Amino acid sequence: MTPALGVGMLGYAFMGKAHSRAYRALEELETPLRPELVSLSGRDREAATAVAHRYGWQTVVTDWREQVADPRIGLFDNGGPNALHAEPTIAAARAGKHVICEKPLGLDAGEAHAMWRAAEDAAVVHMCGFNYRFVPAIRLARQLIDAGAIGRVVHFRARYLQSWGWDAPADRWRFDPAVAGTGAIGDLGAHIIDLARYLSGEIATVSAVLKTFVPQHGVDDAFVATIEFENGAIGTLEASRLARGRVNSNALEINGSDGSLAFDVERLNELEVAEGPGFRRVLVTEPDHPFMELWWPPGHIIGWGDTFTHELHHLVTAIAGGGTVAPHGATFEDGYRCAEVCDAIVRSAQTGRRETVRYR
Amino acid sequence: MTPALGVGMLGYAFMGKAHSRAYRALEELETPLRPELVSLSGRDREAATAVAHRYGWQTVVTDWREQVADPRIGLFDNGGPNALHAEPTIAAARAGKHVICEKPLGLDAGEAHAMWRAAEDAAVVHMCGFNYRFVPAIRLARQLIDAGAIGRVVHFRARYLQSWGWDAPADRWRFDPAVAGTGAIGDLGAHIIDLARYLSGEIATVSAVLKTFVPQHGVDDAFVATIEFENGAIGTLEASRLARGRVNSNALEINGSDGSLAFDVERLNELEVAEGPGFRRVLVTEPDHPFMELWWPPGHIIGWGDTFTHELHHLVTAIAGGGTVAPHGATFEDGYRCAEVCDAIVRSAQTGRRETVRYR
Amino acid sequence: MTPALGVGMLGYAFMGKAHSRAYRALEELETPLRPELVSLSGRDREAATAVAHRYGWQTVVTDWREQVADPRIGLFDNGGPNALHAEPTIAAARAGKHVICEKPLGLDAGEAHAMWRAAEDAAVVHMCGFNYRFVPAIRLARQLIDAGAIGRVVHFRARYLQSWGWDAPADRWRFDPAVAGTGAIGDLGAHIIDLARYLSGEIATVSAVLKTFVPQHGVDDAFVATIEFENGAIGTLEASRLARGRVNSNALEINGSDGSLAFDVERLNELEVAEGPGFRRVLVTEPDHPFMELWWPPGHIIGWGDTFTHELHHLVTAIAGGGTVAPHGATFEDGYRCAEVCDAIVRSAQTGRRETVRYR
Amino acid sequence: MTPALGVGMLGYAFMGKAHSRAYRALEELETPLRPELVSLSGRDREAATAVAHRYGWQTVVTDWREQVADPRIGLFDNGGPNALHAEPTIAAARAGKHVICEKPLGLDAGEAHAMWRAAEDAAVVHMCGFNYRFVPAIRLARQLIDAGAIGRVVHFRARYLQSWGWDAPADRWRFDPAVAGTGAIGDLGAHIIDLARYLSGEIATVSAVLKTFVPQHGVDDAFVATIEFENGAIGTLEASRLARGRVNSNALEINGSDGSLAFDVERLNELEVAEGPGFRRVLVTEPDHPFMELWWPPGHIIGWGDTFTHELHHLVTAIAGGGTVAPHGATFEDGYRCAEVCDAIVRSAQTGRRETVRYR
Repeated sequence: MTPALGVGMLGYAFMGKAHSRAYRALEELETPLRPELVSLSGRDREAATAVAHRYGWQTVVTDWREQVADPRIGLFDNGGPNALHAEPTIAAARAGKHVICEKPLGLDAGEAHAMWRAAEDAAVVHMCGFNYRFVPAIRLARQLIDAGAIGRVVHFRARYLQSWGWDAPADRWRFDPAVAGTGAIGDLGAHIIDLARYLSGEIATVSAVLKTFVPQHGVDDAFVATIEFENGAIGTLEASRLARGRVNSNALEINGSDGSLAFDVERLNELEVAEGPGFRRVLVTEPDHPFMELWWPPGHIIGWGDTFTHELHHLVTAIAGGGTVAPHGATFEDGYRCAEVCDAIVRSAQTGRRETVRYR
Repeated sequence: MTPALGVGMLGYAFMGKAHSRAYRALEELETPLRPELVSLSGRDREAATAVAHRYGWQTVVTDWREQVADPRIGLFDNGGPNALHAEPTIAAARAGKHVICEKPLGLDAGEAHAMWRAAEDAAVVHMCGFNYRFVPAIRLARQLIDAGAIGRVVHFRARYLQSWGWDAPADRWRFDPAVAGTGAIGDLGAHIIDLARYLSGEIATVSAVLKTFVPQHGVDDAFVATIEFENGAIGTLEASRLARGRVNSNALEINGSDGSLAFDVERLNELEVAEGPGFRRVLVTEPDHPFMELWWPPGHIIGWGDTFTHELHHLVTAIAGGGTVAPHGATFEDGYRCAEVCDAIVRSAQTGRRETVRYR
Repeated sequence: MTPALGVGMLGYAFMGKAHSRAYRALEELETPLRPELVSLSGRDREAATAVAHRYGWQTVVTDWREQVADPRIGLFDNGGPNALHAEPTIAAARAGKHVICEKPLGLDAGEAHAMWRAAEDAAVVHMCGFNYRFVPAIRLARQLIDAGAIGRVVHFRARYLQSWGWDAPADRWRFDPAVAGTGAIGDLGAHIIDLARYLSGEIATVSAVLKTFVPQHGVDDAFVATIEFENGAIGTLEASRLARGRVNSNALEINGSDGSLAFDVERLNELEVAEGPGFRRVLVTEPDHPFMELWWPPGHIIGWGDTFTHELHHLVTAIAGGGTVAPHGATFEDGYRCAEVCDAIVRSAQTGRRETVRYR
Repeated sequence: MTPALGVGMLGYAFMGKAHSRAYRALEELETPLRPELVSLSGRDREAATAVAHRYGWQTVVTDWREQVADPRIGLFDNGGPNALHAEPTIAAARAGKHVICEKPLGLDAGEAHAMWRAAEDAAVVHMCGFNYRFVPAIRLARQLIDAGAIGRVVHFRARYLQSWGWDAPADRWRFDPAVAGTGAIGDLGAHIIDLARYLSGEIATVSAVLKTFVPQHGVDDAFVATIEFENGAIGTLEASRLARGRVNSNALEINGSDGSLAFDVERLNELEVAEGPGFRRVLVTEPDHPFMELWWPPGHIIGWGDTFTHELHHLVTAIAGGGTVAPHGATFEDGYRCAEVCDAIVRSAQTGRRETVRYR
């Protein structure tokens, strides 16, 4: 009989739904711990109750402090707005609970650093919700790079482009700096910074420009940046909520001395692989591809939501093993390091200088 | 409190997994009936038990007759091999259970006809598992056609290409005519015949060639066919398990007097739409796209397995309403009519003549 | 000093322009004979004169018989409407002139056969204008197939789709059976039949449906066909002038036991090559790719018109060598064999039977 | 009778071939002046003679000063290596000859400025060889932008990626700073800077990183840059000769408040156009598309070399009209302004600061 792991989750909106669904999917897999949906917290009790009912959360509370104090809870899952990341997560870690927190880890690098230190000091397992690491094509890219298939990496370029910013009401929390911290940087940029780090190594310097095109928005609508990696590779990062025609295009390309890789999250199940001239479109659904033992025969694609199943499966396994989610899962250290890059982007935009990414 | 609907399922392999997962996903949606996973039947008790455990089936039996006799079961779901479709499904319908059966409905049109008549006579809800009707892009294609967006349809072409046939062991049941009936025809061709009917209307004639290239295979590896529709449109159908490079490419194109549509299941979330010259790639993930109220913000794609959630949601709703799954779900009549086209393909391949599709 | 080859051309419209331009381009290449643009014939003297002036044709005549009688002419190039293919070409061959004639070779197989026999009897070099054989990607496909790269061919499918038929005035000669013979068959189908023969071998049987959707058209707007090759491969052919969204999509795919190839003339410089799962996009512009020694550094694409330069270069070289344009150029025998397939398509459409392609 | 325009060309390699071929193609078009291939200059008389013979250049000289002094020459065409751009071109302009010079205009902005001033002072027509402005899809993009089809431009991103740098001998002139000035910047970057200016307006600032990955190379192998436009748009520029898998991928995307455009020179005949979500692939071969009155029926693509025909046609028309090649052709002012952006890229790479582009 698989032992249970009580989960308390903060947040019931987009991420709340994605995580809830994934916890339930874990029941269908072999896991060393069985997640039990103990408690869901949200300020709007009615809305939270509806979500809790749908996914089987046993309790609804309106104050996350109840979850921190709840002895049934072994894992605290924070899917709330950015401004609610640091305090509850730190409290939960200090209470000895394992923690997973959505990205960006904190409102800035300072918050993220405090979260990381708190989790380390408490010796709990910690994970930052960079779910794109759990896309089979991304894991395959990492495996190929690790195996030397593309040689020495010289270029990394990623652009995360959406277009909803033109049409969304300006009073969304994502446009409010007090709640969101930054705009495209933390929302979209954090994802591609993490992928840059996961696939090509630490970022040494950044030069960036931020821009708010829609006057009603309190945060950046878009940024562009050049980067240098510690290993000498160079690249570009770019994110926008104002790229008409692009819906959720998180696209990257990596060029190495022996080959190249390209990916776009709009075509989640595909990896483009070049050894010589010309890219080969690999449908990442073969039995020996990452995570595919959980799924279907070749050619039957998985969805974006399924990446959370992989992510939480990985987390639960790490908790059971008493270890860490590294290197394939993002730790709070990864969340913090990403935040330093985000902060360096903001700093460079202000100073007009190439900024070295520094860690405290 | 949502009333329950007891489900008994035959089969625990590929389709068993797809359906089990979808029943569980229904719990997260609003449904008028709540599926209860009462009983799973399979000849190999041990294997069935493992699957039952994973998905929460309450009972495992090795004889489907127990399910037919089980008063707790209101819906009989047949996901077994083709040769096990007719007898158990007919028995279940006669026992007053609603029925869903995987495609192809029977081993031939005769079996399929008997299944349809039995279900009609028993006045139960019946559905044939053509899940591709529940791909959002396919439903959108149907909506666009119904709305006249592409005018009068003149061409329909579909090809369902896989490549596993070169490498698979020859003793699989799918190569055995006694168990599978046909090869590429019933396995892949049935899907595109159903899509042809769903999107362009009844097929009037077929001319076809069948071929078994791998001598060890007892069934057709591939077929090619030309078709005429009752409405005057013409087209081609083609399926193969021997198309190197293609993994699960179920691709179709429809040309009308005012526009065209194109789709490939390897890119499940995309529909190509042409009004004038040039196709527009539509990511079928907008809030007003079919089924998308169940899912994520735009650009976050769904997976192949999720089409079964849509399918079973549709079925359960029909059962609750006391109606039929038509026109968007495939009934046993659709399964039967598809079988007549399949039989006409076989007949034409033998006679070398253009064969009229006839219904008994 | 390169000896001259006097050219007389019939026709000054689409093909007249394509050939004129290519003859001029030959001057920039090394050729064993130097084409001299001696004489252009056309019924409309004024229009012909304008074209002659543009491309440097020395004389304009309104009766092709003057060209047949002109001793300066060594090569007769027939780019006129289909109904003007047989008589002038046969007369020219009998007058000892080498001949190139646009496709389809004759109005039917009978005419085509007479043309072939006449050219053979006259022992002149003869070529049928299947210019797609001179697309670098197609020649590369042939090289790969000849080298065994995709193993034994099992499937060939091609569809040549255009959409101008919906909008063009109905009094164009291409809709007039007296001038054009057939519609989509001879215009588009002939190209893909020739490619089928060039890449996969002789066609043994066809089953087809023809259709005229626009009542004002005197010829077929579209056809669909299944084919069997003498080597056992099977396939589909399809052509239409009524496929909205498609402009000039001559697309084919070949599946073999070890790999596959795919091509679309709208992306003339690309060949898709599959060895295992997934196709690699090869830009056919590398120095060692066919014809590329004539052109630019890699990645700088050539145009559709440039295929005629390759074709006429090949023809002139064959004439100089006293040989044949086979196997890479299409001879009148190829034109005739293609015509027999076209006729079998028409016959099958009428009889509703699978028709064996027979040669007289 | 069309009056002649004597042409003297410096250089007989890549650009020499491209220009020669285009001058000859002009004879087939209606032009107000008829280019006469008077004189070709090159240091290697034998090689130059071979090229001259091929394309019909009447004279070969080894010293361009002879061309400057030749009264038959009305247009001086400089297609030599970068270090040979300034002096001969300035001399030719001062001698009253119209001038076209390949890009990059000079070795640096100082040279380019002197060339511009000399041409202006001499009141001759001057053109810088940014041939991508003469790609039909690029001209169409400009037309759409000018017509307001995509609204206010917010983002421009371009990347020009090749891969030959890994494999080429290190002693090529393109790797020698004395002859080439810069590497990827002047060779590839200049093209995308010009397209940025042509399609989105003047560039105000740049932040950049340069990199030489192959130690034997004397120039930059790659650069990355962020840019700000005077109109407030932001973007990225990137060029590399070390991007495995990419052959000649000059790809750009422009996002505006109402729509987006995307283009890649590897698919020269296509423009991707987005009005709402999803891009439409437009084959830029319709009769009303730019330059298409010179070519074929829709769907019959043109080649890279044909862009020079458009470019020189434009130049000859401007010369005949006594005007300028602006705004659709690039003048020496455009070449100079591009050079200032190149220099700012180099400067920013050195200072690590965001550099304002300044004009002297």
